[in-house]
Amino acid sequence: MTSLQTETEMGMPITTLEDSVRFIDGVVRILDRRIFPERIEWVEARTAAAVAGAIRDMVTQSSGPYYAAALGMQLAATQAVGLDLARTREALAEAGIMLATARPTNNHPAEAVAQILADAENATNADDYRTMIVDASRAAVDRYRNRSRALATHAAALVPDGARILTHCWMDTYLVELVRAGRRLNRQWEWVATETRPFLQGARLTAHTLAEMGESVTLISDGMVAAALAPGSTLGPIDAAITAADRVTMDGCVINKVGTLGVALAANAFGVPYHALVQSPDSGAPTAADVVIEERDPEEVLNTLGHRTASPLVTQAWYPAFDVTPSRFVSRIVTDRGAFEPAQLADYFGGTK
Amino acid sequence: MTSLQTETEMGMPITTLEDSVRFIDGVVRILDRRIFPERIEWVEARTAAAVAGAIRDMVTQSSGPYYAAALGMQLAATQAVGLDLARTREALAEAGIMLATARPTNNHPAEAVAQILADAENATNADDYRTMIVDASRAAVDRYRNRSRALATHAAALVPDGARILTHCWMDTYLVELVRAGRRLNRQWEWVATETRPFLQGARLTAHTLAEMGESVTLISDGMVAAALAPGSTLGPIDAAITAADRVTMDGCVINKVGTLGVALAANAFGVPYHALVQSPDSGAPTAADVVIEERDPEEVLNTLGHRTASPLVTQAWYPAFDVTPSRFVSRIVTDRGAFEPAQLADYFGGTK
Repeated sequence: MTSLQTETEMGMPITTLEDSVRFIDGVVRILDRRIFPERIEWVEARTAAAVAGAIRDMVTQSSGPYYAAALGMQLAATQAVGLDLARTREALAEAGIMLATARPTNNHPAEAVAQILADAENATNADDYRTMIVDASRAAVDRYRNRSRALATHAAALVPDGARILTHCWMDTYLVELVRAGRRLNRQWEWVATETRPFLQGARLTAHTLAEMGESVTLISDGMVAAALAPGSTLGPIDAAITAADRVTMDGCVINKVGTLGVALAANAFGVPYHALVQSPDSGAPTAADVVIEERDPEEVLNTLGHRTASPLVTQAWYPAFDVTPSRFVSRIVTDRGAFEPAQLADYFGGTK
Repeated sequence: MTSLQTETEMGMPITTLEDSVRFIDGVVRILDRRIFPERIEWVEARTAAAVAGAIRDMVTQSSGPYYAAALGMQLAATQAVGLDLARTREALAEAGIMLATARPTNNHPAEAVAQILADAENATNADDYRTMIVDASRAAVDRYRNRSRALATHAAALVPDGARILTHCWMDTYLVELVRAGRRLNRQWEWVATETRPFLQGARLTAHTLAEMGESVTLISDGMVAAALAPGSTLGPIDAAITAADRVTMDGCVINKVGTLGVALAANAFGVPYHALVQSPDSGAPTAADVVIEERDPEEVLNTLGHRTASPLVTQAWYPAFDVTPSRFVSRIVTDRGAFEPAQLADYFGGTK
């Protein structure tokens, strides 16, 4: 029984984006989030390289690349038929590298790939190896959903009934599980979502999913974050700012979609707690200096959903996909093992990194 | 000789938007900045009420409503032919109220109207009154340009040669005069402009005008402000954040386009000076509680330049046109009489408000 089935049995709706990376008939099908919900189109990836390309092109993002990486490994395993064990290992290792490095900042896909390869390590022949990769891929998907549910449960406990929550970009599985965790605690919340330029994940994915779940959501543009968090705003008080994190370093810095730093600064200035959600901190990244911040094509800033929105005279733009929020602006890092103060993050690993 | 003529003689180009409100052949023609530069279209206003409507609909903004209000008074004066002095005064007072109250937050148009009416106060017959209104309207336009040049000269003195300046929204006449003031001091600057959703004034007006003037400008989306101001950004260090102010209260709070508060918070957090440019503080507004913050149609947040960009499931949005930056986040208020620390703003009026 998968997590999705459990939710169906509890009578909770499955949101469109929850099931937007699929492995069917030897093809990884990825819902194109760059144009959703205006159009429902699926990108079909027939090789691990094509899956990696879709991740790189942001066909899917947030939790999406994790699922795509896991299913890309399944795809590679099913395509390795007829090779001996050594060659099969090679093929899977090569697929793993492509999938793990498609984008540099979020570490979860790379962790999934490493775990899937490790889970199949003891295979003694090629057939077993392929079967173990497929099983490990499925386990990786289940693990991600279960860990997301666990961290959402810890996060929900921090947010009182009746709270208004401001969120930035698109928390994907974390968001859906946070809403469900709140309902299990009988907590009703209202949401404020930033639109999140350049890709507008907030306006298209977050606000859409919250509306699908029957939540109350108000959209703001990214420049309104500080005004929304300031005391006396006509929007009403905001009780918590919550985002996902693509990476959390061991010194408690949060690396997430660009704009998160502005959310954290404003929350900090006006006494609103800011919490970052991540399955686990990255024991391989002591500080933010150990994390590559991806820079993307500046054209995206000059355009909006394919329409030129900047003056044609403008040729230069800057598009860092992520920013770094120093730990002093973070209230809690909420993981699958509980909510930690940034300075106590080593406790995630039992105090021994 | 007008300010524009002076600049032409100095060999400096007149930017498109500098001359975008005109009174020609009995019609106030206003360049439609909502669609510029994609299309060049002029809204023709044949009554003061129509001018006020154009201001309210944001056909023009920033300095534009000041010019439109002044020219709207000229229009009303030329249309008052045949009335006696009392009726003419009434007609102009009525036009003045419409023009002064078209939008509530920026106080300069209302000041222009009040001054134009005061300048014609001593007229002894209707013809003289109309002539005096027209002269006063022209003087108001010249005064605005001259005061903008004065404040720009004071602002330029605060920004060293080689600086990179981050600006938000559209400073209009202040921006053009700031570039010119820098050049008079032989200072070369680079610019970072926010795109400024929902209307994208930064992407369409600011970046366009800076490019027209031959300045180097890099566009960012609004959520990138904090990342740009943070130390170590790949954009390179930013030396000053500068915006206009629609209103400055006597306790040093800056009311300006929503997003300004986020700029100021980030600048403050990372030790970058934030300066606000305004012709004068408002002696009628002791604190921000005395200023009406305009809220506009939430539809603008759900759309981008007329295209729906939010999910169709989303129905709620929030669009405060301005935010309030508390004085503790402001380095200098730069006026036509010099740059003041926020706490010293009473000195603008010689220490006696």
